[in-house]
Amino acid sequence: MEVPIAEELAKKQKSISVAEFFEKNRHILGFDSAPRSLITTVKEAVDNALDACEEAEILPDILIQIERVEQDYVTVIIEDNGPGIIKEQIPKVFAKLLYGSRFHSLKQSRGQQGIGISAAVLYSQMTTGKHTKILSKTGLNTLAHYYELMINTSTNEPDILKDEVKDWFRAHGTQIELEMKAAYVKGRRQSIYEYLKATAIVNPHARITLIEPDGNEEVFERATDKMPDLSEEILPHPEGIELGTLMKMLHHTERQKLASFLRYSFCKIGLFTAEEICKAAGLDPEIDPHFLSHHEARKLIESFEKVKIMAPPTDCLSPIGEELIYRGLEKETKVDFIATSTRKPAVYSGNPFVVEVGLAYGGNLSKEEKISIMRFANRVPLLYQQGGCVTTHAVEDIKWKQYGLNQPGGGIPVGPAILLIHVASINVPFTSESKDAIADIPVIKEEVNLAIKDVARKLKHYLSKQDNLKKRREKEIIITKVLPKMALKVANILGKEVPDINPVVAMIMGNLLVYRKVNKNEDGTAHIVIKIKNFGSSTHSFRIHEMLPWTISRAKPEPKIVTMGNDYDYIWEVSTAVGSSKVLSYMIEHATAKELGKLPDLIVEGIEEELVTGAKAFKEI
Amino acid sequence: MEVPIAEELAKKQKSISVAEFFEKNRHILGFDSAPRSLITTVKEAVDNALDACEEAEILPDILIQIERVEQDYVTVIIEDNGPGIIKEQIPKVFAKLLYGSRFHSLKQSRGQQGIGISAAVLYSQMTTGKHTKILSKTGLNTLAHYYELMINTSTNEPDILKDEVKDWFRAHGTQIELEMKAAYVKGRRQSIYEYLKATAIVNPHARITLIEPDGNEEVFERATDKMPDLSEEILPHPEGIELGTLMKMLHHTERQKLASFLRYSFCKIGLFTAEEICKAAGLDPEIDPHFLSHHEARKLIESFEKVKIMAPPTDCLSPIGEELIYRGLEKETKVDFIATSTRKPAVYSGNPFVVEVGLAYGGNLSKEEKISIMRFANRVPLLYQQGGCVTTHAVEDIKWKQYGLNQPGGGIPVGPAILLIHVASINVPFTSESKDAIADIPVIKEEVNLAIKDVARKLKHYLSKQDNLKKRREKEIIITKVLPKMALKVANILGKEVPDINPVVAMIMGNLLVYRKVNKNEDGTAHIVIKIKNFGSSTHSFRIHEMLPWTISRAKPEPKIVTMGNDYDYIWEVSTAVGSSKVLSYMIEHATAKELGKLPDLIVEGIEEELVTGAKAFKEI
Repeated sequence: MEVPIAEELAKKQKSISVAEFFEKNRHILGFDSAPRSLITTVKEAVDNALDACEEAEILPDILIQIERVEQDYVTVIIEDNGPGIIKEQIPKVFAKLLYGSRFHSLKQSRGQQGIGISAAVLYSQMTTGKHTKILSKTGLNTLAHYYELMINTSTNEPDILKDEVKDWFRAHGTQIELEMKAAYVKGRRQSIYEYLKATAIVNPHARITLIEPDGNEEVFERATDKMPDLSEEILPHPEGIELGTLMKMLHHTERQKLASFLRYSFCKIGLFTAEEICKAAGLDPEIDPHFLSHHEARKLIESFEKVKIMAPPTDCLSPIGEELIYRGLEKETKVDFIATSTRKPAVYSGNPFVVEVGLAYGGNLSKEEKISIMRFANRVPLLYQQGGCVTTHAVEDIKWKQYGLNQPGGGIPVGPAILLIHVASINVPFTSESKDAIADIPVIKEEVNLAIKDVARKLKHYLSKQDNLKKRREKEIIITKVLPKMALKVANILGKEVPDINPVVAMIMGNLLVYRKVNKNEDGTAHIVIKIKNFGSSTHSFRIHEMLPWTISRAKPEPKIVTMGNDYDYIWEVSTAVGSSKVLSYMIEHATAKELGKLPDLIVEGIEEELVTGAKAFKEI
Repeated sequence: MEVPIAEELAKKQKSISVAEFFEKNRHILGFDSAPRSLITTVKEAVDNALDACEEAEILPDILIQIERVEQDYVTVIIEDNGPGIIKEQIPKVFAKLLYGSRFHSLKQSRGQQGIGISAAVLYSQMTTGKHTKILSKTGLNTLAHYYELMINTSTNEPDILKDEVKDWFRAHGTQIELEMKAAYVKGRRQSIYEYLKATAIVNPHARITLIEPDGNEEVFERATDKMPDLSEEILPHPEGIELGTLMKMLHHTERQKLASFLRYSFCKIGLFTAEEICKAAGLDPEIDPHFLSHHEARKLIESFEKVKIMAPPTDCLSPIGEELIYRGLEKETKVDFIATSTRKPAVYSGNPFVVEVGLAYGGNLSKEEKISIMRFANRVPLLYQQGGCVTTHAVEDIKWKQYGLNQPGGGIPVGPAILLIHVASINVPFTSESKDAIADIPVIKEEVNLAIKDVARKLKHYLSKQDNLKKRREKEIIITKVLPKMALKVANILGKEVPDINPVVAMIMGNLLVYRKVNKNEDGTAHIVIKIKNFGSSTHSFRIHEMLPWTISRAKPEPKIVTMGNDYDYIWEVSTAVGSSKVLSYMIEHATAKELGKLPDLIVEGIEEELVTGAKAFKEI
């Protein structure tokens, strides 16, 4: 083997433009099939629109229109009411990969990479050879700029094919129109409709309108006029920062003293902490950071771990929040139980992140199928690559048996449940540029795991309670079937009236006994007594509802009265200690004996049905 | 909302260097945890070494040495005997992302992206701030070049920190030394040892030596001196080519006529096919391709589908081959059954690819766990992101019940099986730059699916045969327990000798009956007759082995004789049609009656044990 081989091979060596790279590897960007390519395009445009609106504090109003051009080809138009993009920036924002405003900024945003929308432009030109059309306007008193663009893939620079000024009815905003090989699909989770629905749930301040190829219009209406809290930019947090990264920072800092370098290069390092870190590292706080040796930088990293540094600030993050997660899950389907959990912010490689989880159980969800996992990253739904996502791996690693779900063959458990997982970070570590799955970063996996276990424990508690209530119910049914027969028999033998068995049932079951006695007076009035006795093992606080078509008098104590059409709802707030009794009473002036014989059931609000005998009961409205 | 917002936002817009991008998103390159970062580094260096050796037709000899520097930090040295890299190219090859020789080349190779090894350099400098050391020599009569390099992340250009000439004992080759934050792990599938083992299986022409941090040396010895067939560069195949890509090719071609453009821009389009395509598209073969309209280009694409174009050539691909797959699976564990399948080459977006599958079943593999999937792409084992890979999705989509494996809860089936899947292509569509998983390209999924179903059908056949044989065996056991008792009883009653029940058993079972009759003569010799009768339902061809400590004489027909120590193996080739009989006979000169009474069992080679009565039998050695 002599020199020529290496020389020969060297001739082929050359630079690859990032546009060429992604032209060849478009699947990495999420353009691997006709339906997915369309979803990715819509996703990137909607992400940008939401980010821009939030930065400009505008309530987003986004329109997505898909038109079929011919078999396998569609035109997609996405329009927003955002702040618009200034003329000079338009070509690069849309027709240059790795160009953007959010890459260098340490705060939560949907876009991070400066790739997304240009990737859609690249895909459009690859599959159709057509230009992408951009219209953008930055304010009322200006005209809109109209561009037709392509990407020069060998240089990764924009080719400007038209550059005009236009009138546009909008005050401000941006519209992008692309033609591409794509397929519009409906009725499955991986669809534009479902993506927008999930987006609307976690972005209730946005109005999103979708016009489907058949002309059908779907509006996801704004649920609130309140903008989410603006996420703030932060400095990197020292936790998990790499030695090489620190050395680079030391080398490039403008500060002349180590202590002030620390203080102004990182978040959560104040004057005192900076001194402490220097001390722990055995370094003079006054020395010039530029001349730190490899060994000294290493000492510094070690002392970051030794000295107690506060957790990163949370204002760089914008979690969905437990209330929205709850409402989102409630909306998704009719369920019996919902639990949510939010972890404290944690840090990976200097990047703060927070994990939120919600779990919905029961209702009309299928018992035979694997649970559904709804994944979100920075308020963006993740539709693809579920199997490659750290959130899924965390679900699979849990032994679900102990929380009441089957897990045949391991992996994702089976049962009537939906698990919603949101990871929010100033830099979500996606496994690829298509941003479909989050990488297996150990600390993120751990946080997801803990959040899921938290809701899983709540589920277990709920299920075991349900189980207990079910068993009580079964016991009560048996008792209430046997006792009446016994009572009837005994009464017959003794020639007495059949006794009310409710007190006995309540006693055996340890329930709250509620019963009403009606004493008819000779003057046509009636005196009603409601007796309550707690045979249970804990104090109960609840409300008794008596719903009648008459006004009552001389009530003791006085109930709250709610008028309901022709009826009145008389409400008593009652609290009964274990073993204690309460008595309520009132008078009815004019009621026939027949009417008095058919009084409606009393209602107990605030206790499970299974724990009450003698009245209807429910825990919550 | 007025202009200022857009102006404000515009200030933050800027270009992102690809090195910065991957510095922030290093998990995309496979550097997301300490163990994985080390595996990724070794993988990228070994891929490069194997590719370079193959291109230079050198039998690869690769050394990997891992040394622990301190807690959490290691030095990794990878050395090969490849052709070396010429001085001018060294800095860019190792310290510039998106630079390489294989990106623009349409043939199968391990490296495709021009990212891998520079990514390891980037990771090294991020985590330790240290230089990467390169030593490379291109021939006997030259000195080696020594470089110390870093990547300037804001420009994505190499920083050369040392540039020297050195003596090196090797004739040619390259050595890279990096220090990095990493963890060396053992004893699990995702480890350097397992990665190298799997690499050695599918690259038997390579010798790979691993020196572990504890000094232990593992050598994966070369199993063949034959280089794999060199894969050839091809032109793109017209199948699945995108409209935009075709328009770009039309725009840039040097040809002046459409027909010759087609002929010299694509593989498998000859003069005749080119004319046919033009005709189908309604285009004049003589027109200048540069001036084709959008509509005409579209017609051309449509006619690619109409005209029959031959499948892509396979010499651009270098599959593992069924024999190596078989041997690889056999080596992996002791199994009962192995099936392999190779699909014909197919094409996605103009890129030929081929799918090979092997399935091993039974033996000491666990029956309770999910089957193992061994994934390979272009002869490189894939260790991570199994859940995100098209191969896994293809496995999960199959209804395994019908092939005899359980699939509790859906997904990956459970059973004692290993499934090896290899996708080879001139451009494997990985889901990310870390090259761990193959994207969900529909046509690839389909091919993997068909290949798996092919081996799964073979498995089903094997299992149902095993099942049948098992049932026969059970039936025979019952018969051979009952019949002797009946025979004994009948013999006792009639006062006769107990008859040989084998013929009856063979008849009932539909088996091949083999029995030996020994006739002792008065002169001390013995005449032996072997009778064979086929009670089965198909013709049997097999060998009868008679293994004796004596020479025999007057054999009819003459057997083949194999001497085995003091014994002789007499072998008759026999074929019996349904219902027919065969007789073999021979003489023994000097044997005692006692010896004759204890002749060893006859052996039938070539038929399953369960189908033979009266002799030992086995299907294969």
